[in-house]
Amino acid sequence: MSVNTYGHLFRVTTWGESHGPALGATVDGCPPGIPLEPAQIQVWLDRRRPGQSRYTSQRREADEVEILSGTFESKTTGTPILLMIRNADQRSKDYGDIAEKFRPGHADITYWQKYGIRDHRGGGRSSARETAARVAAGGVARAALEQLVPGLRINGYMVAMGDREIDRGRFDWAEIDRNPFWTPDAKSAEDWAPYLDGLRKSGSSIGAIIEVTVRGCPPGLGAPVYGKLDADLAAAMMSINAVKGVEIGEGMAAARLAGAENADEILMGTDGPEFDSNHAGGILGGISTGQDIVVRFAVKPTSSILTPRKTITKAGDATEIVTKGRHDPCVGIRAVPVAEAMAASVILDHFLLDRAQTGGVRGRIG
Amino acid sequence: MSVNTYGHLFRVTTWGESHGPALGATVDGCPPGIPLEPAQIQVWLDRRRPGQSRYTSQRREADEVEILSGTFESKTTGTPILLMIRNADQRSKDYGDIAEKFRPGHADITYWQKYGIRDHRGGGRSSARETAARVAAGGVARAALEQLVPGLRINGYMVAMGDREIDRGRFDWAEIDRNPFWTPDAKSAEDWAPYLDGLRKSGSSIGAIIEVTVRGCPPGLGAPVYGKLDADLAAAMMSINAVKGVEIGEGMAAARLAGAENADEILMGTDGPEFDSNHAGGILGGISTGQDIVVRFAVKPTSSILTPRKTITKAGDATEIVTKGRHDPCVGIRAVPVAEAMAASVILDHFLLDRAQTGGVRGRIG
Amino acid sequence: MSVNTYGHLFRVTTWGESHGPALGATVDGCPPGIPLEPAQIQVWLDRRRPGQSRYTSQRREADEVEILSGTFESKTTGTPILLMIRNADQRSKDYGDIAEKFRPGHADITYWQKYGIRDHRGGGRSSARETAARVAAGGVARAALEQLVPGLRINGYMVAMGDREIDRGRFDWAEIDRNPFWTPDAKSAEDWAPYLDGLRKSGSSIGAIIEVTVRGCPPGLGAPVYGKLDADLAAAMMSINAVKGVEIGEGMAAARLAGAENADEILMGTDGPEFDSNHAGGILGGISTGQDIVVRFAVKPTSSILTPRKTITKAGDATEIVTKGRHDPCVGIRAVPVAEAMAASVILDHFLLDRAQTGGVRGRIG
Amino acid sequence: MSVNTYGHLFRVTTWGESHGPALGATVDGCPPGIPLEPAQIQVWLDRRRPGQSRYTSQRREADEVEILSGTFESKTTGTPILLMIRNADQRSKDYGDIAEKFRPGHADITYWQKYGIRDHRGGGRSSARETAARVAAGGVARAALEQLVPGLRINGYMVAMGDREIDRGRFDWAEIDRNPFWTPDAKSAEDWAPYLDGLRKSGSSIGAIIEVTVRGCPPGLGAPVYGKLDADLAAAMMSINAVKGVEIGEGMAAARLAGAENADEILMGTDGPEFDSNHAGGILGGISTGQDIVVRFAVKPTSSILTPRKTITKAGDATEIVTKGRHDPCVGIRAVPVAEAMAASVILDHFLLDRAQTGGVRGRIG
Repeated sequence: MSVNTYGHLFRVTTWGESHGPALGATVDGCPPGIPLEPAQIQVWLDRRRPGQSRYTSQRREADEVEILSGTFESKTTGTPILLMIRNADQRSKDYGDIAEKFRPGHADITYWQKYGIRDHRGGGRSSARETAARVAAGGVARAALEQLVPGLRINGYMVAMGDREIDRGRFDWAEIDRNPFWTPDAKSAEDWAPYLDGLRKSGSSIGAIIEVTVRGCPPGLGAPVYGKLDADLAAAMMSINAVKGVEIGEGMAAARLAGAENADEILMGTDGPEFDSNHAGGILGGISTGQDIVVRFAVKPTSSILTPRKTITKAGDATEIVTKGRHDPCVGIRAVPVAEAMAASVILDHFLLDRAQTGGVRGRIG
Repeated sequence: MSVNTYGHLFRVTTWGESHGPALGATVDGCPPGIPLEPAQIQVWLDRRRPGQSRYTSQRREADEVEILSGTFESKTTGTPILLMIRNADQRSKDYGDIAEKFRPGHADITYWQKYGIRDHRGGGRSSARETAARVAAGGVARAALEQLVPGLRINGYMVAMGDREIDRGRFDWAEIDRNPFWTPDAKSAEDWAPYLDGLRKSGSSIGAIIEVTVRGCPPGLGAPVYGKLDADLAAAMMSINAVKGVEIGEGMAAARLAGAENADEILMGTDGPEFDSNHAGGILGGISTGQDIVVRFAVKPTSSILTPRKTITKAGDATEIVTKGRHDPCVGIRAVPVAEAMAASVILDHFLLDRAQTGGVRGRIG
Repeated sequence: MSVNTYGHLFRVTTWGESHGPALGATVDGCPPGIPLEPAQIQVWLDRRRPGQSRYTSQRREADEVEILSGTFESKTTGTPILLMIRNADQRSKDYGDIAEKFRPGHADITYWQKYGIRDHRGGGRSSARETAARVAAGGVARAALEQLVPGLRINGYMVAMGDREIDRGRFDWAEIDRNPFWTPDAKSAEDWAPYLDGLRKSGSSIGAIIEVTVRGCPPGLGAPVYGKLDADLAAAMMSINAVKGVEIGEGMAAARLAGAENADEILMGTDGPEFDSNHAGGILGGISTGQDIVVRFAVKPTSSILTPRKTITKAGDATEIVTKGRHDPCVGIRAVPVAEAMAASVILDHFLLDRAQTGGVRGRIG
Repeated sequence: MSVNTYGHLFRVTTWGESHGPALGATVDGCPPGIPLEPAQIQVWLDRRRPGQSRYTSQRREADEVEILSGTFESKTTGTPILLMIRNADQRSKDYGDIAEKFRPGHADITYWQKYGIRDHRGGGRSSARETAARVAAGGVARAALEQLVPGLRINGYMVAMGDREIDRGRFDWAEIDRNPFWTPDAKSAEDWAPYLDGLRKSGSSIGAIIEVTVRGCPPGLGAPVYGKLDADLAAAMMSINAVKGVEIGEGMAAARLAGAENADEILMGTDGPEFDSNHAGGILGGISTGQDIVVRFAVKPTSSILTPRKTITKAGDATEIVTKGRHDPCVGIRAVPVAEAMAASVILDHFLLDRAQTGGVRGRIG
């Protein structure tokens, strides 16, 4: 991860501001010969798009992706893929107040301090709108993974909103796409709807916990000791706006366990090694085990709320601010497709890294 | 972070295995003219060294560092600094059993699957012994920070062991160096001693939570949106052996908060902006705010325990394993100086990155 | 240099194919607060633009650059700058024949062998059209250098065409912009015009030697021993289409000299050290000396000529090919602004690298 | 190439000064399972070692390499390989005069200006002694290539010394190892001996041209458009001390050719495409064609000569200097094994890069 680029070999550079003419991703290092049409990317962008339910920002954006380079006759050529999304509904007037004041909990003050200049319109580069570019790039990664690692599936979903957690006994993969919260627990979805309606109406906001599971990942991906698969996933998730914590497998709760509880015992299955539990979250020593990879992260509540908050102006004067723009009462919802995209990019990147060094050959067991 | 190297500009490559002749770090990109003698590095290594209390591995290592290049007349020259630590007490016989069996919870099986070959002696490259090299490199970073950012202080400490958490009301910076757990809470230190003695005698182990605070960090460090200071800190901590979760500021608990509770209000102080709380952990939009930077992470319990555990052999046969080597009942203890070293390297790296792009000038407020 | 990106800190990723909808550059790491408007970039693109004299390709392209991100109120913000140039005159029919045949001297066969797919239209990614993106990015580098290193000047010019070399006794900086060959020797310009007319009419082509001089570069830029300023300049020039050799200062001729002839003696001037000659081309040990930096490179003749050439088809059958597209009889001419742009990017990049490591402070002499 | 590291995936960081305790290379990214013993590296170091004939520096160094990490039971494990060479014969007294004076043609003045500190003993980091580390790393690359690309051969040799060039009609591969100049032309070797003896005795020095040929390189290696195989080779050679020019294939002479003379015609051979000439030097569009890869570079004459030269002191005073240390009358001789090592590292690196992106599959012809 380096300034505006992530990935070792599958390298994604995102560019663009919330209220500029366009934003997008420049994707380098994609394998050649991968079938790729805009529709394959659009499907993921549509999941992230604002304004789809009453629980997300009412900004209206088509978020239509254009592929400006890197494909020929609907296949990737191995050259850079430029993905562009035009900004349509920019409504800059909504943001007039924030030109001079720093919004608490936002990057306004730090961008100003670091750069001495900032595009305040809609948060400029630090807007969550930047994540649309990641989702587009993730679409390319997904297309490549479909060819290179058939059977691999990446699913993100919400496991907690505020202090309300899902009941894992009711976990249903099929439920995820059926509710506006991307939660696998139908009962939670029912429960969260009126709760979030209340927060939205009162102009408040709430945090959430998102989990991403990668099923069907082969063993051997990950580059110890600093390009560990878990370290790269942690950086990828932490780079998403508003994320404050990242966990792999047992996560922070691992601190409470004894050695005998935590280490997953190894058995011999018909197709190779198996484990009798997955506290490790599918990663040992930074390398995938072949089990499900489980990453979890916390999204803080939007700081853009209707309650007046104390702050200062660029001139250093004390003042108050109320953020009137169109915002999400729970930004965690829209973090779900973003996290899936980041996971897809990291997995593809490590697939390529591993293929480079080992040729994809695995050490034999049995 | 890239395979065995971390850092954008202050680049550290660690090398070496647990039972090879030596291990160390190759440090590139250090500013020139920094006073640096082995003793400045040794002081940090001595904190990490095993065998210092009955709570850490009884392996006896002097962990004496040699500087083989990059300094002249006790100052850095701007060329690569080679730090070497010889392995003394290797006692390979202790590890005979693990040549053929994979230890649950360890990287044995994944290294084998990925590489088709592994140095099983003491865990080889995946041994916690590798972290000595990080601590040495961190000593160089500290020496540079002392010159470049006077007043900056980096402190790691333990805030929980198993389900026992410190009482933050008793937090005392001076206490940290007085007890074998590096905890700021004297009462917890007393309480944890018999608890860990019990675990040690029974051959069991326990997880822990470590926190690192960076005081005196100037605002403006961090490179959004993918070289964010928090993303790089997350990767740095997650790359430490046995870490399963990383938090910045409020961390995972941010998910439970409402917007008005979470966003830190901004006030004007005599020396510039101040905040009335620090839920953000000193970082907004990936850039330091000038507040204390707070990073926290969970260390899982050592998987090397005396309880027999089910596993398989390289031949694929089911078996059991008991790890008889010299191990730490709570590896979290020795993670403290390692985490400080990683934090020092990341902060210095971002200081250099920021100086490159902005010249170190800050946007004016007031 | 890494696949489609160059630069350590000022990082340019170019994207786009000759006959796709657009091409451009994604520029990351530019310092903030630099005045930047499209016109500042357009002026350089206009120099490279085809169809300006009868000596360059008759393809008609406006080569109008759009800035899609990274500036606010006509200043850079420190975030990625996306530069886009739409392809207008694509005339794909001209290239029908090359879909199945490999043009000798072109990258057709190697792209096919490596990727198993290629956009044959106009050479796709390997077309010299890609260099427009470099020129645009170089315009950003120039704008930044103007602020950061006032007085620095970068000039490219042609010193030989075929076996006709300029007479350095007639070297005139002002002449460079006055003739279609960018040569500093008016007499050569006169002489080359009918010579190149003849080649153009016969459908032939010729090679050339281009030199770039950087005046006003401060001492201390360059990062030994592998990010040497000369090594980075060599890679930058060698990456330009059709370049087959690169020289610094005395270049290949240094092989013919004795030690006493080659080493530039050092004198003390009023403003610091001076040298009584510049065989070194302004670089010693990979670091700038403060003298003029002199880089020279050879451009091979276009392989697209009207003479029938033996080749094979994708099916492996022997055949002949005549390239009928619109081509430059001496591509070296258009390499001049490209080389200037590459030099500007490398110098800015090393300015930032040096500022990171040393803070820009210089060792004192006298 | 980045400060003290080269390579994208096969990454070599060299460290160490001429008169420090040791120097070496930290090699990351080597494929696992490659047979590797010190003797395989020593054989190449012995070729570069000073003091072997009367034509090279009389400094006596065993240059014995130790492998401190990264192998197990004489095979690489995929973890970093630390190669260390102790400095034995340092004789610092010889260099006393250069502590205060800057040697013309050396990096003394630029290191001082950039870093404000320098290890003057024997040139410190800028000494040609650093190249021993490259040769060692190249030995690792060779060992890997032997397994991954059987049949690939890399040979360096001298083609000109001063204004004396070899006669290519007498080119004999077997001759290269038989004379102290590594030249393939026995007649030239005879001729050069008395010539260089004369220069040596008079305390003078002379430049040279070295060529490296890679035979048996598969097509498809190289990563356009900035990680081109020729761009990476150019940077690799230009990074060698004293190199001032680099050529691929026809090189600078390509400027003199017409299109019909320069482009290599393509024929269909029994094993795939063939070319009727090799002006391209085995690389088209930055990608290998399968033909011999031909790189050539000029080495300037050593600036360490007995003739007094004008220079200045650190205090800025005018003075003279005579370099009395033990030096090579033609440093080009010892550049031969260094260039081979750099070529080996670049080729392996690109083999890995290509395997990552394409899986090593080639587009079919015929």
